[in-house]
Amino acid sequence: MKKRVLSGIQPSGKLHLGNYLGAIKQHLDSQAQADWDRYFFIANYHSLTTLPDAAELRERTLDVARTYLALGLDPEKSLLFMQTDVPEVCELAWILTCFAPMGLLQRCTSYKDKVARGLSANHGLFAYPVLQAADILIYDSHLVPVGSDQKQHVEVCRDLAIKVNQTYGELLVVPDPVIKEDVAVIPGTDGQKMSKSYHNTIELFATKKQLKKQIMSIVTDSKGLEEPKDPDTCNVFRLYHFFANADEIAEMAQKYRAGGFGYGHAKLALFEKVDAFLEPYRDRYNHLLEHPDEVMDVLRQGAKEARKTAIETTRRVREAVGFINH
Amino acid sequence: MKKRVLSGIQPSGKLHLGNYLGAIKQHLDSQAQADWDRYFFIANYHSLTTLPDAAELRERTLDVARTYLALGLDPEKSLLFMQTDVPEVCELAWILTCFAPMGLLQRCTSYKDKVARGLSANHGLFAYPVLQAADILIYDSHLVPVGSDQKQHVEVCRDLAIKVNQTYGELLVVPDPVIKEDVAVIPGTDGQKMSKSYHNTIELFATKKQLKKQIMSIVTDSKGLEEPKDPDTCNVFRLYHFFANADEIAEMAQKYRAGGFGYGHAKLALFEKVDAFLEPYRDRYNHLLEHPDEVMDVLRQGAKEARKTAIETTRRVREAVGFINH
Repeated sequence: MKKRVLSGIQPSGKLHLGNYLGAIKQHLDSQAQADWDRYFFIANYHSLTTLPDAAELRERTLDVARTYLALGLDPEKSLLFMQTDVPEVCELAWILTCFAPMGLLQRCTSYKDKVARGLSANHGLFAYPVLQAADILIYDSHLVPVGSDQKQHVEVCRDLAIKVNQTYGELLVVPDPVIKEDVAVIPGTDGQKMSKSYHNTIELFATKKQLKKQIMSIVTDSKGLEEPKDPDTCNVFRLYHFFANADEIAEMAQKYRAGGFGYGHAKLALFEKVDAFLEPYRDRYNHLLEHPDEVMDVLRQGAKEARKTAIETTRRVREAVGFINH
Repeated sequence: MKKRVLSGIQPSGKLHLGNYLGAIKQHLDSQAQADWDRYFFIANYHSLTTLPDAAELRERTLDVARTYLALGLDPEKSLLFMQTDVPEVCELAWILTCFAPMGLLQRCTSYKDKVARGLSANHGLFAYPVLQAADILIYDSHLVPVGSDQKQHVEVCRDLAIKVNQTYGELLVVPDPVIKEDVAVIPGTDGQKMSKSYHNTIELFATKKQLKKQIMSIVTDSKGLEEPKDPDTCNVFRLYHFFANADEIAEMAQKYRAGGFGYGHAKLALFEKVDAFLEPYRDRYNHLLEHPDEVMDVLRQGAKEARKTAIETTRRVREAVGFINH
C-alpha cells in the first residue's frame, strides 16, 4: 500500500501570492513524487469556527478548488475534496473527543493565539484540534506536512491515536508530522507578511488590471527617481526575487544602487514578471470560473474516493468502541 | 404536523427499579397521549464519555431496548433507536459547537459535578451539552422532558438554536423543556438513592432467584422479630409503597407498629409484590433476549424514520451556513 500524505487547506479568502509561495507551490510540486498517495481537502468545517458569511464561505471553498486546479493540481495524481463531503469526520471527532483530556486542548497555543487576536472564544476554536485529528486519522494518513505553528496539533493527533490504540489495539495509523521549512516571509503591499487579514495581498487570479493596481500600490520609501536606492529594504525588490532568475535579480539590484531607476520602474518590472508567471494559469482559472461543473466533478470524484477510506476507518472504530454496526 | 417529544436514555447498566419508577414508567405512560410524536433514543455516543468497556457498552445498549420493549414500548406509537444510527448528529454538533461560546459550556454544572465525582476530565464530558443540543435540534423536537439536573443543558440547546436562528433566519425549532416533577427518591438496598454506581440496585430483569436475593439484602435496623418497628424509616416499607395499593400499605404499616412482624416478613411481602409486577414482562424480556433480531428490527425501523428528519435538518443547516450540498 502506498503511503498517504494529507494536507488541509483553509478556505480563508481569495488566494494570493503569499499563499502560493508559502504552501500551494510545495503542494503542487509534491505531485512529482509518484510513490505517495496525496489527499488535499478544503477545510470548510474548520472555517466555520470564524463564523463567516455563508455565501462567502461557499465562494471561498470553490475558489480554493479552482485555484489549485488552475495551477496544476492533477486529479489523476491527487485527490481534491471538500471536508464537508465526508461528514464521517465529525463522528470520528466525537469519538476522539472522549479520549482527549481537557488539559491536552487547554495547552494548545493556537486557540489562545486566536482568542488573543480577537476571534471570539467559541468552542469550535477550542475543539479545532480534535476535528483536525479526525481528518488525519480517518484517512490513515502517514505524513502530515505542516508549518511549525501547526506542529502542536499533529502532536495532539498522535496522542489521541496512541491512546485509542492502547485501549483497543492497533486501530489507527499514528501519523508523522513533516515540519515544512519556514519559507521566507512573503511581504504584502505594506511590507508586513502578506495576509488576507492585513488587506495587503496581491491576488493570484485578479484581472490583469487589478493585478497591476495591487502591485503599483506597494509601499516604498519616498526616494526620488534619481537617487540611489537600497534593494534589500525594498518590498518591490523582495517580491521580484521570487519571480526572476539570478541574472535578472542581480541586474535589478544594480539599477537600484545606480540611481536613475524609480520605484515605478521596479513595480512595472515586477508586474511584468508576475503577470508572465500567472498568464498561462489565468485562462484555465477563468475557464473553471465559467464551468463550475468541472470543478464540482473533481471535488465529487475526490470525495467519493476519500470517503471509501473514511467509511472503513469509522466502521472499524465504531466496532472497537462498542457501537453496534449493522 | 404533530408536535414531537424527545427523550434520551443513557445505557448506563442493567436497568433497575429506580430507573423504572424514576423515568421508564413516565416514558411509557406518555404513550397514552396520541397527539404527540415520541422519539426515544439510546444515547450511546454520550456513553462514550465515561469510556466504558466495548462489549459492555454494546450489551447495555441492547438491554435498554429489550427493557423498554418488554415493559410496553409500542413501536407503533414511539420510535426507539440508537443514537449511533443517526451519525448526522455529530455533524450538527460540530456546526453548533462553532456557535457555542466557551463560557456557556464552562458554566454547565453537570460537567463540574461529574469531574468532582471522579470522572476523568475529558473533552467529551465538557462537550456533552453540545451533542445533546444536536440530538434535540436535529429532530425538530418541541418538548424535552428532563429532570431538574438536566434543565441547564436544555437551556444551552435553546441558546444555540436561538443564536443560529438569529444568524440565518428561522432554521431550527427552539425546544421547550418540560421539567419533570422530582419523583420521590427510590431507595436502594442500602438506603441511599438506588443507583448503579452505589451497587445497591434491585434489577428489573434479574431472575426470580436473583430478585429475591437482592430484596432480601435490603439493609434494615437490627430490631428483633417481636419489637414494634417504624415503617417510615424502613427501606423495605418505602419500596413496598411503590408496588402496593393503599389498603396493603396501611396494613403493612400497622403490622410494623404492632410488633411480631420481622423484616424478613416485610422483605418477602415486598418480593411477592415486585415479582408479581414484573412477572408478565419477564417472559417478553427473556423472549427478546433470545431473539436479538426482533430488537434490532425495532431499532433499525426507528432509526430509519428518525434519520429522515435528521438528514433534512442537517441539509437545511449545511445549506444555511455555507457548505456546498450536491
